[in-house]
Amino acid sequence: MTATITGLANSPDRGRGLARDMRVRWALEEVGQPYDVRLLSFAEMKQPPHLALHPFGQIPTYEEPGLHLFESGAIILLIAETHDGLLPSDLADRMRAINWLFAALNTVEPPILERETAMLLERDESWHAQRLPGLEARICKRLDALTTYLGDRDWLEGAFTAGDLMMVSVLLRLGSSGLLRLYPALSAYVSRAEARPAYQRAFAAQLAIYEAASSTK
Amino acid sequence: MTATITGLANSPDRGRGLARDMRVRWALEEVGQPYDVRLLSFAEMKQPPHLALHPFGQIPTYEEPGLHLFESGAIILLIAETHDGLLPSDLADRMRAINWLFAALNTVEPPILERETAMLLERDESWHAQRLPGLEARICKRLDALTTYLGDRDWLEGAFTAGDLMMVSVLLRLGSSGLLRLYPALSAYVSRAEARPAYQRAFAAQLAIYEAASSTK
Repeated sequence: MTATITGLANSPDRGRGLARDMRVRWALEEVGQPYDVRLLSFAEMKQPPHLALHPFGQIPTYEEPGLHLFESGAIILLIAETHDGLLPSDLADRMRAINWLFAALNTVEPPILERETAMLLERDESWHAQRLPGLEARICKRLDALTTYLGDRDWLEGAFTAGDLMMVSVLLRLGSSGLLRLYPALSAYVSRAEARPAYQRAFAAQLAIYEAASSTK
Repeated sequence: MTATITGLANSPDRGRGLARDMRVRWALEEVGQPYDVRLLSFAEMKQPPHLALHPFGQIPTYEEPGLHLFESGAIILLIAETHDGLLPSDLADRMRAINWLFAALNTVEPPILERETAMLLERDESWHAQRLPGLEARICKRLDALTTYLGDRDWLEGAFTAGDLMMVSVLLRLGSSGLLRLYPALSAYVSRAEARPAYQRAFAAQLAIYEAASSTK
Protein backbone atom coordinates (compact mmCIF):
# COMPACT_ATOMS: atom_id res chain seq x y z
CA MET A 1 0.00 0.00 0.00
CA THR A 2 1.53 3.27 -1.15
CA ALA A 3 0.68 6.44 0.77
CA THR A 4 -0.10 9.70 -1.00
CA ILE A 5 1.24 13.01 0.23
CA THR A 6 0.60 16.51 -1.06
CA GLY A 7 3.15 19.11 -2.08
CA LEU A 8 3.24 22.46 -3.85
CA ALA A 9 3.19 22.57 -7.65
CA ASN A 10 5.15 25.82 -7.41
CA SER A 11 7.07 25.98 -4.15
CA PRO A 12 8.08 29.54 -3.26
CA ASP A 13 11.45 28.21 -2.05
CA ARG A 14 12.39 27.31 -5.66
CA GLY A 15 13.17 23.69 -4.83
CA ARG A 16 15.48 24.39 -1.91
CA GLY A 17 13.70 21.76 0.18
CA LEU A 18 12.13 24.14 2.70
CA ALA A 19 8.47 23.31 2.04
CA ARG A 20 7.13 20.94 4.67
CA ASP A 21 6.51 18.04 2.31
CA MET A 22 10.31 17.66 2.32
CA ARG A 23 10.19 16.45 5.94
CA VAL A 24 7.69 13.75 5.07
CA ARG A 25 9.55 12.72 1.91
CA TRP A 26 12.74 12.42 3.94
CA ALA A 27 11.05 10.26 6.60
CA LEU A 28 9.56 7.96 3.94
CA GLU A 29 12.98 7.63 2.28
CA GLU A 30 14.63 6.82 5.63
CA VAL A 31 12.27 3.89 6.18
CA GLY A 32 12.37 2.81 2.52
CA GLN A 33 8.71 3.38 1.72
CA PRO A 34 7.62 4.48 -1.76
CA TYR A 35 5.00 7.23 -1.93
CA ASP A 36 2.84 9.12 -4.39
CA VAL A 37 2.69 12.90 -4.49
CA ARG A 38 -0.30 15.00 -5.48
CA LEU A 39 0.76 18.53 -6.39
CA LEU A 40 -1.45 21.49 -5.55
CA SER A 41 -1.48 25.11 -6.63
CA PHE A 42 -1.87 27.79 -3.98
CA ALA A 43 -5.48 28.22 -5.09
CA GLU A 44 -6.22 24.48 -4.81
CA MET A 45 -4.79 24.43 -1.27
CA LYS A 46 -7.61 26.73 -0.14
CA GLN A 47 -10.46 24.89 -1.91
CA PRO A 48 -12.95 22.40 -0.38
CA PRO A 49 -11.41 19.14 -1.63
CA HIS A 50 -8.10 19.96 0.05
CA LEU A 51 -9.69 21.65 3.08
CA ALA A 52 -11.49 18.37 3.75
CA LEU A 53 -8.04 16.84 4.27
CA HIS A 54 -6.32 19.85 5.84
CA PRO A 55 -8.60 22.25 7.77
CA PHE A 56 -5.91 24.96 7.72
CA GLY A 57 -5.36 24.75 3.95
CA GLN A 58 -1.67 23.88 3.92
CA ILE A 59 0.63 21.09 2.79
CA PRO A 60 1.63 18.37 3.42
CA THR A 61 -1.16 15.90 3.95
CA TYR A 62 -0.78 12.14 4.21
CA GLU A 63 -3.35 9.62 3.00
CA GLU A 64 -3.47 5.87 3.25
CA PRO A 65 -6.62 3.71 3.27
CA GLY A 66 -8.56 4.48 6.45
CA LEU A 67 -6.33 7.32 7.66
CA HIS A 68 -5.48 10.87 6.68
CA LEU A 69 -3.26 13.26 8.59
CA PHE A 70 -2.25 16.87 8.03
CA GLU A 71 0.46 17.84 10.51
CA SER A 72 4.01 17.01 9.46
CA GLY A 73 4.90 16.15 13.08
CA ALA A 74 2.09 13.60 13.31
CA ILE A 75 2.83 12.21 9.84
CA ILE A 76 6.47 11.65 10.72
CA LEU A 77 5.51 10.09 14.03
CA LEU A 78 3.15 7.69 12.22
CA ILE A 79 5.86 6.72 9.73
CA ALA A 80 8.38 6.27 12.55
CA GLU A 81 5.99 4.26 14.73
CA THR A 82 4.98 1.89 11.94
CA HIS A 83 8.37 1.24 10.31
CA ASP A 84 11.88 0.52 11.54
CA GLY A 85 14.62 3.10 11.29
CA LEU A 86 13.47 6.38 12.86
CA LEU A 87 12.76 5.48 16.51
CA PRO A 88 14.44 3.16 19.03
CA SER A 89 12.29 0.26 20.25
CA ASP A 90 12.84 0.84 23.99
CA LEU A 91 10.02 3.06 25.37
CA ALA A 92 12.28 5.49 27.27
CA ASP A 93 14.65 5.89 24.30
CA ARG A 94 11.72 6.28 21.92
CA MET A 95 10.14 8.97 24.09
CA ARG A 96 13.44 10.87 24.25
CA ALA A 97 13.55 10.93 20.44
CA ILE A 98 9.90 12.03 20.28
CA ASN A 99 10.71 14.70 22.87
CA TRP A 100 13.19 16.21 20.37
CA LEU A 101 10.59 16.03 17.60
CA PHE A 102 8.36 18.24 19.73
CA ALA A 103 11.28 20.46 20.78
CA ALA A 104 12.10 21.09 17.12
CA LEU A 105 8.50 22.06 16.32
CA ASN A 106 7.46 23.89 19.46
CA THR A 107 10.67 25.36 20.96
CA VAL A 108 13.13 25.88 18.11
CA GLU A 109 10.90 26.53 15.09
CA PRO A 110 8.61 29.30 16.45
CA PRO A 111 11.26 32.06 16.67
CA ILE A 112 12.66 30.98 13.28
CA LEU A 113 9.18 31.18 11.80
CA GLU A 114 8.64 34.57 13.41
CA ARG A 115 11.75 35.90 11.69
CA GLU A 116 10.56 34.44 8.36
CA THR A 117 7.18 36.11 8.79
CA ALA A 118 8.86 39.44 9.51
CA MET A 119 11.05 39.10 6.40
CA LEU A 120 8.00 38.30 4.32
CA LEU A 121 5.44 40.77 5.65
CA GLU A 122 7.33 43.59 7.38
CA ARG A 123 10.47 44.06 5.33
CA ASP A 124 9.35 47.44 3.98
CA GLU A 125 8.23 48.83 7.34
CA SER A 126 10.32 51.63 8.82
CA TRP A 127 10.75 49.66 12.06
CA HIS A 128 11.75 46.33 10.48
CA ALA A 129 15.48 47.02 10.94
CA GLN A 130 14.86 47.91 14.57
CA ARG A 131 12.90 44.68 15.25
CA LEU A 132 15.24 42.26 13.50
CA PRO A 133 18.04 42.09 16.13
CA GLY A 134 15.53 41.14 18.84
CA LEU A 135 14.05 38.41 16.65
CA GLU A 136 17.49 37.03 15.88
CA ALA A 137 18.50 37.17 19.54
CA ARG A 138 15.52 34.96 20.37
CA ILE A 139 16.62 32.45 17.71
CA CYS A 140 20.22 32.53 18.96
CA LYS A 141 19.08 31.80 22.51
CA ARG A 142 17.65 28.52 21.19
CA LEU A 143 20.71 27.79 19.06
CA ASP A 144 23.02 28.46 22.02
CA ALA A 145 21.07 25.99 24.17
CA LEU A 146 21.00 23.39 21.40
CA THR A 147 24.75 23.75 20.85
CA THR A 148 25.44 23.26 24.55
CA TYR A 149 23.24 20.17 24.64
CA LEU A 150 24.70 18.68 21.44
CA GLY A 151 28.30 19.00 22.66
CA ASP A 152 30.27 16.46 20.67
CA ARG A 153 27.32 14.21 19.96
CA ASP A 154 26.69 13.25 16.33
CA TRP A 155 22.93 13.08 16.89
CA LEU A 156 20.59 14.25 19.65
CA GLU A 157 20.13 10.79 21.22
CA GLY A 158 22.63 8.15 20.14
CA ALA A 159 21.69 7.13 16.60
CA PHE A 160 19.80 9.30 14.08
CA THR A 161 16.07 9.48 14.90
CA ALA A 162 12.90 11.27 13.84
CA GLY A 163 13.94 13.93 16.38
CA ASP A 164 17.06 14.71 14.35
CA LEU A 165 15.09 14.63 11.12
CA MET A 166 12.75 17.32 12.43
CA MET A 167 15.42 19.39 14.19
CA VAL A 168 17.57 19.52 11.05
CA SER A 169 14.52 20.38 8.93
CA VAL A 170 13.80 23.29 11.25
CA LEU A 171 17.42 24.50 11.30
CA LEU A 172 17.52 24.40 7.50
CA ARG A 173 14.85 27.13 7.50
CA LEU A 174 17.56 29.48 8.78
CA GLY A 175 19.06 29.14 5.28
CA SER A 176 19.67 32.61 3.96
CA SER A 177 19.64 34.29 7.40
CA GLY A 178 23.34 33.56 7.92
CA LEU A 179 22.63 32.62 11.55
CA LEU A 180 23.53 28.95 11.21
CA ARG A 181 27.03 29.92 10.06
CA LEU A 182 27.62 31.42 13.51
CA TYR A 183 27.22 27.91 14.98
CA PRO A 184 29.87 25.56 13.50
CA ALA A 185 28.74 22.57 15.59
CA LEU A 186 25.13 22.96 14.47
CA SER A 187 26.23 23.52 10.87
CA ALA A 188 28.20 20.27 11.02
CA TYR A 189 25.16 18.52 12.54
CA VAL A 190 22.99 19.74 9.67
CA SER A 191 25.63 18.69 7.11
CA ARG A 192 25.78 15.18 8.57
CA ALA A 193 22.03 14.91 8.08
CA GLU A 194 22.11 16.35 4.57
CA ALA A 195 24.73 13.75 3.64
CA ARG A 196 22.32 10.91 4.36
CA PRO A 197 21.24 9.12 1.17
CA ALA A 198 17.59 9.33 2.24
CA TYR A 199 17.83 13.12 2.59
CA GLN A 200 19.45 13.38 -0.82
CA ARG A 201 16.80 11.28 -2.52
CA ALA A 202 14.02 13.33 -0.95
CA PHE A 203 15.72 16.61 -1.85
CA ALA A 204 16.24 15.51 -5.45
CA ALA A 205 12.60 14.44 -5.80
CA GLN A 206 11.21 17.80 -4.69
CA LEU A 207 13.81 19.74 -6.71
CA ALA A 208 12.82 17.82 -9.86
CA ILE A 209 9.26 19.13 -9.49
CA TYR A 210 10.45 22.72 -9.30
CA GLU A 211 12.75 22.24 -12.29
CA ALA A 212 10.05 20.59 -14.38
CA ALA A 213 7.61 23.41 -13.54
CA SER A 214 10.21 26.06 -14.42
CA SER A 215 11.12 24.49 -17.75
CA THR A 216 7.52 24.47 -18.95
CA LYS A 217 6.95 28.14 -18.11
CA MET B 1 5.65 4.97 40.92
CA THR B 2 4.84 8.67 41.13
CA ALA B 3 6.25 10.98 38.48
CA THR B 4 7.74 14.37 39.35
CA ILE B 5 7.06 17.42 37.24
CA THR B 6 8.42 20.95 37.57
CA GLY B 7 6.47 24.19 37.80
CA LEU B 8 7.10 27.84 38.62
CA ALA B 9 7.28 28.92 42.25
CA ASN B 10 6.01 32.32 41.10
CA SER B 11 4.07 32.00 37.86
CA PRO B 12 3.79 35.32 36.03
CA ASP B 13 0.18 34.42 35.14
CA ARG B 14 -0.81 34.71 38.82
CA GLY B 15 -2.33 31.24 38.96
CA ARG B 16 -4.54 31.60 35.90
CA GLY B 17 -3.39 28.21 34.61
CA LEU B 18 -1.44 29.48 31.60
CA ALA B 19 2.00 28.12 32.57
CA ARG B 20 2.76 24.94 30.70
CA ASP B 21 2.84 22.70 33.76
CA MET B 22 -0.96 23.10 33.75
CA ARG B 23 -1.19 20.99 30.58
CA VAL B 24 0.74 18.16 32.20
CA ARG B 25 -1.19 18.39 35.48
CA TRP B 26 -4.43 18.21 33.50
CA ALA B 27 -3.29 15.12 31.57
CA LEU B 28 -2.23 13.36 34.78
CA GLU B 29 -5.58 14.20 36.37
CA GLU B 30 -7.45 12.88 33.30
CA VAL B 31 -5.74 9.49 33.62
CA GLY B 32 -5.96 9.45 37.41
CA GLN B 33 -2.25 9.44 38.16
CA PRO B 34 -0.85 11.20 41.25
CA TYR B 35 2.27 13.31 40.75
CA ASP B 36 4.83 15.30 42.70
CA VAL B 37 5.74 18.87 41.80
CA ARG B 38 9.12 20.52 42.27
CA LEU B 39 8.80 24.29 42.18
CA LEU B 40 11.54 26.42 40.65
CA SER B 41 12.34 30.11 40.74
CA PHE B 42 13.19 31.86 37.45
CA ALA B 43 16.84 31.83 38.52
CA GLU B 44 16.81 28.09 39.27
CA MET B 45 15.31 27.39 35.82
CA LYS B 46 18.50 28.68 34.20
CA GLN B 47 20.96 26.85 36.49
CA PRO B 48 22.86 23.60 35.74
CA PRO B 49 20.72 21.16 37.77
CA HIS B 50 17.60 22.16 35.83
CA LEU B 51 19.41 22.63 32.51
CA ALA B 52 20.49 18.99 32.77
CA LEU B 53 16.79 18.11 32.61
CA HIS B 54 15.69 20.89 30.24
CA PRO B 55 18.34 22.17 27.81
CA PHE B 56 16.25 25.28 27.06
CA GLY B 57 15.78 26.18 30.73
CA GLN B 58 11.99 26.14 30.89
CA ILE B 59 9.22 24.27 32.65
CA PRO B 60 7.66 21.74 32.74
CA THR B 61 9.87 18.69 32.94
CA TYR B 62 8.73 15.15 33.69
CA GLU B 63 10.78 12.58 35.59
CA GLU B 64 10.15 8.97 36.34
CA PRO B 65 12.80 6.29 37.00
CA GLY B 66 14.77 5.79 33.78
CA LEU B 67 13.14 8.60 31.80
CA HIS B 68 13.04 12.37 31.78
CA LEU B 69 11.28 14.57 29.24
CA PHE B 70 11.03 18.31 28.80
CA GLU B 71 8.50 19.12 26.08
CA SER B 72 4.89 19.33 27.22
CA GLY B 73 3.76 17.75 23.93
CA ALA B 74 5.98 14.72 24.47
CA ILE B 75 5.07 14.47 28.14
CA ILE B 76 1.37 14.44 27.35
CA LEU B 77 1.91 11.90 24.59
CA LEU B 78 3.78 9.64 27.05
CA ILE B 79 1.00 9.93 29.63
CA ALA B 80 -1.63 9.27 26.96
CA GLU B 81 0.24 6.31 25.46
CA THR B 82 0.84 4.60 28.79
CA HIS B 83 -2.57 5.11 30.44
CA ASP B 84 -6.18 4.80 29.35
CA GLY B 85 -8.34 7.85 28.83
CA LEU B 86 -6.60 10.30 26.49
CA LEU B 87 -6.17 8.36 23.24
CA PRO B 88 -8.35 5.84 21.37
CA SER B 89 -6.86 2.35 21.01
CA ASP B 90 -7.40 2.02 17.23
CA LEU B 91 -4.23 3.19 15.40
CA ALA B 92 -6.01 5.42 12.88
CA ASP B 93 -8.18 7.05 15.56
CA ARG B 94 -5.16 7.47 17.83
CA MET B 95 -3.13 9.11 15.08
CA ARG B 96 -5.97 11.54 14.33
CA ALA B 97 -5.97 12.63 17.97
CA ILE B 98 -2.17 12.96 17.94
CA ASN B 99 -2.51 14.96 14.73
CA TRP B 100 -4.55 17.54 16.67
CA LEU B 101 -1.98 17.57 19.45
CA PHE B 102 0.60 18.65 16.87
CA ALA B 103 -1.85 21.07 15.21
CA ALA B 104 -2.40 22.80 18.54
CA LEU B 105 1.32 23.19 19.15
CA ASN B 106 2.61 23.87 15.66
CA THR B 107 -0.25 25.50 13.74
CA VAL B 108 -2.49 27.24 16.29
CA GLU B 109 -0.09 28.21 19.09
CA PRO B 110 2.68 30.00 17.10
CA PRO B 111 0.63 33.09 16.09
CA ILE B 112 -0.86 33.25 19.61
CA LEU B 113 2.64 33.12 21.07
CA GLU B 114 3.79 35.78 18.63
CA ARG B 115 1.07 38.13 19.87
CA GLU B 116 2.03 37.39 23.48
CA THR B 117 5.67 38.16 22.73
CA ALA B 118 4.67 41.44 21.10
CA MET B 119 2.55 42.39 24.12
CA LEU B 120 5.43 41.56 26.42
CA LEU B 121 8.40 43.03 24.56
CA GLU B 122 7.08 45.61 22.09
CA ARG B 123 4.17 47.23 23.85
CA ASP B 124 5.99 50.54 24.28
CA GLU B 125 7.26 50.73 20.69
CA SER B 126 5.75 53.42 18.48
CA TRP B 127 4.84 50.78 15.86
CA HIS B 128 3.21 48.28 18.26
CA ALA B 129 -0.30 49.55 17.52
CA GLN B 130 0.38 49.29 13.80
CA ARG B 131 1.62 45.69 14.07
CA LEU B 132 -1.13 44.35 16.32
CA PRO B 133 -3.97 44.04 13.78
CA GLY B 134 -1.79 41.94 11.47
CA LEU B 135 -0.82 39.64 14.36
CA GLU B 136 -4.45 39.25 15.36
CA ALA B 137 -5.51 38.60 11.78
CA ARG B 138 -3.07 35.69 11.64
CA ILE B 139 -4.57 34.26 14.84
CA CYS B 140 -8.11 34.73 13.52
CA LYS B 141 -7.24 32.87 10.32
CA ARG B 142 -6.47 29.84 12.49
CA LEU B 143 -9.56 30.33 14.67
CA ASP B 144 -11.76 30.64 11.56
CA ALA B 145 -10.41 27.35 10.20
CA LEU B 146 -10.78 25.63 13.56
CA THR B 147 -14.37 26.86 13.89
CA THR B 148 -15.23 25.55 10.44
CA TYR B 149 -13.70 22.18 11.22
CA LEU B 150 -15.35 21.91 14.65
CA GLY B 151 -18.84 22.60 13.27
CA ASP B 152 -21.23 21.15 15.83
CA ARG B 153 -18.78 18.60 17.19
CA ASP B 154 -18.25 18.53 20.96
CA TRP B 155 -14.60 17.46 20.57
CA LEU B 156 -12.18 17.38 17.66
CA GLU B 157 -12.46 13.61 17.07
CA GLY B 158 -15.41 11.87 18.73
CA ALA B 159 -14.59 11.69 22.45
CA PHE B 160 -12.25 14.02 24.37
CA THR B 161 -8.58 13.22 23.63
CA ALA B 162 -5.07 14.54 24.27
CA GLY B 163 -5.62 16.60 21.09
CA ASP B 164 -8.49 18.49 22.75
CA LEU B 165 -6.48 18.88 25.94
CA MET B 166 -3.69 20.60 24.02
CA MET B 167 -5.93 22.62 21.72
CA VAL B 168 -7.92 24.01 24.64
CA SER B 169 -4.71 24.77 26.55
CA VAL B 170 -3.49 26.75 23.56
CA LEU B 171 -6.79 28.61 23.10
CA LEU B 172 -6.79 29.55 26.79
CA ARG B 173 -3.63 31.57 26.13
CA LEU B 174 -5.85 34.00 24.20
CA GLY B 175 -7.27 34.90 27.62
CA SER B 176 -7.13 38.64 27.98
CA SER B 177 -6.87 39.32 24.22
CA GLY B 178 -10.64 39.24 23.80
CA LEU B 179 -10.24 37.26 20.57
CA LEU B 180 -11.85 34.07 21.82
CA ARG B 181 -15.05 35.98 22.60
CA LEU B 182 -15.41 36.60 18.86
CA TYR B 183 -15.81 32.83 18.38
CA PRO B 184 -18.81 31.53 20.35
CA ALA B 185 -18.37 27.93 19.16
CA LEU B 186 -14.73 27.88 20.24
CA SER B 187 -15.60 29.58 23.53
CA ALA B 188 -18.18 26.86 24.19
CA TYR B 189 -15.60 24.20 23.27
CA VAL B 190 -13.14 25.68 25.77
CA SER B 191 -15.86 25.89 28.44
CA ARG B 192 -16.77 22.22 27.94
CA ALA B 193 -13.14 21.34 28.61
CA GLU B 194 -12.83 23.64 31.62
CA ALA B 195 -15.88 21.96 33.13
CA ARG B 196 -14.12 18.59 33.24
CA PRO B 197 -13.33 17.53 36.83
CA ALA B 198 -9.74 16.71 35.84
CA TYR B 199 -9.23 20.24 34.49
CA GLN B 200 -10.67 21.73 37.66
CA ARG B 201 -8.45 19.64 39.93
CA ALA B 202 -5.35 20.61 37.94
CA PHE B 203 -6.34 24.28 37.91
CA ALA B 204 -6.97 24.32 41.65
CA ALA B 205 -3.62 22.66 42.35
CA GLN B 206 -1.60 25.26 40.45
CA LEU B 207 -3.70 28.15 41.81
CA ALA B 208 -3.03 26.95 45.36
CA ILE B 209 0.70 27.39 44.76
CA TYR B 210 0.25 30.96 43.60
CA GLU B 211 -2.01 31.77 46.54
CA ALA B 212 0.37 30.21 49.06
CA ALA B 213 3.29 32.15 47.58
CA SER B 214 1.27 35.40 47.64
CA SER B 215 0.20 34.99 51.25
CA THR B 216 3.79 34.58 52.48
CA LYS B 217 5.07 37.69 50.68
